[in-house]
Amino acid sequence: MENAICLLSGGLDSATCLAVARRDGYHCYALSFDYGQRHKTELEAAARVAAAFGVERHITAKISLDAFGGSALTADIAVPKARSIEEMGRGIPVTYVPARNTIFLSFALAWAEVLESSHIFIGVNALDYSGYPDCRPEFIAAYEKMANLATKAGLEGRTHLTIHTPLIHLSKAQIVRLGQELGVPFGLTHSCYDPTPEGRPCGQCDACLLRRKGFDEAGIEDR
Amino acid sequence: MENAICLLSGGLDSATCLAVARRDGYHCYALSFDYGQRHKTELEAAARVAAAFGVERHITAKISLDAFGGSALTADIAVPKARSIEEMGRGIPVTYVPARNTIFLSFALAWAEVLESSHIFIGVNALDYSGYPDCRPEFIAAYEKMANLATKAGLEGRTHLTIHTPLIHLSKAQIVRLGQELGVPFGLTHSCYDPTPEGRPCGQCDACLLRRKGFDEAGIEDR
Repeated sequence: MENAICLLSGGLDSATCLAVARRDGYHCYALSFDYGQRHKTELEAAARVAAAFGVERHITAKISLDAFGGSALTADIAVPKARSIEEMGRGIPVTYVPARNTIFLSFALAWAEVLESSHIFIGVNALDYSGYPDCRPEFIAAYEKMANLATKAGLEGRTHLTIHTPLIHLSKAQIVRLGQELGVPFGLTHSCYDPTPEGRPCGQCDACLLRRKGFDEAGIEDR
Repeated sequence: MENAICLLSGGLDSATCLAVARRDGYHCYALSFDYGQRHKTELEAAARVAAAFGVERHITAKISLDAFGGSALTADIAVPKARSIEEMGRGIPVTYVPARNTIFLSFALAWAEVLESSHIFIGVNALDYSGYPDCRPEFIAAYEKMANLATKAGLEGRTHLTIHTPLIHLSKAQIVRLGQELGVPFGLTHSCYDPTPEGRPCGQCDACLLRRKGFDEAGIEDR
């Protein structure tokens, strides 16, 4: 069976994405990032999920993304609260972290190259996060093309690297249903952008609201 | 005048590349990486070069690239010494760091997005480093295409990001001549892969040998 690098933020989507990779028979290597985010709770969630799934290895790469600023998730900008779905749909939110997925995929590519793996899984979603440029299918396709020119294996024509995005066209409710089907331990995951000091979700940020909406629409309890 | 992000390793090539950006009138923001390389001397060189050129700002981003291993520059693999130019040309050297330029460019992209800059300069060279997949023009072209789909500005069609590679088709001797023309302080730069504990070049690794050959062929003194 082949190895796969699975980007794991500790949220619902990345946990479900990891569950898909496992269902498809890959040996999973989970990769998380300590990028100066205000919510470290998410890193603890990633570690819990990785352990629950029994991945081959889990690395949390420390990167100083906060040095550049520019996002509510790393800089001193307020996380928006209690927005309607319509408001969320307008433009790119301040929680967007510049070039985040580009950077995350680049580290996944480095690890894939070292492990001689041709598979990267990322739980991006073009539907709920249509405001994020780096969640769109055309971005992923361009990334895959670039990645195949970036590596030794690509240069030598030995392999074709594939970036798997099993959730890209799913609604949050469909992700919740898929997660339940695959036994994702929802209670171990964390979505909130602005948790309390005790690590509890705020219930009012975009991530909390989308998560609640997804579970409501799926008719599944979030636990 | 426009802002440009200039990747700066502290070596001869990146210093010359920065000099080109400055000559072309950009306000330069220099970006270096502490990626667990064995030779920290190179970071001191980057800081000296950035200061000498009076860049707007110099950031050294700390990233844990060594977590993945796989290169003589980060892992416990011996740096090859005293190889002939022919030997260097055969295959990809162990000093290759997996996905390094992909990762470096991704951080540059993040900073460019925060600064609303459309220009990234990188001193890659396809001639002397033909063994490195991520120094080739087709890689850079694919990266630029991907980058234009990755950002807010790209999504909104506000700008076209350009990755400038002014050295890509130059020989080392041509780079040395260009550097001299533009007043690059050669003595502040550092190329060696395996410096002595005092930070002096070993004189025998590929980087030292290519550097010496370049200065010899250009008929210019390395100081």
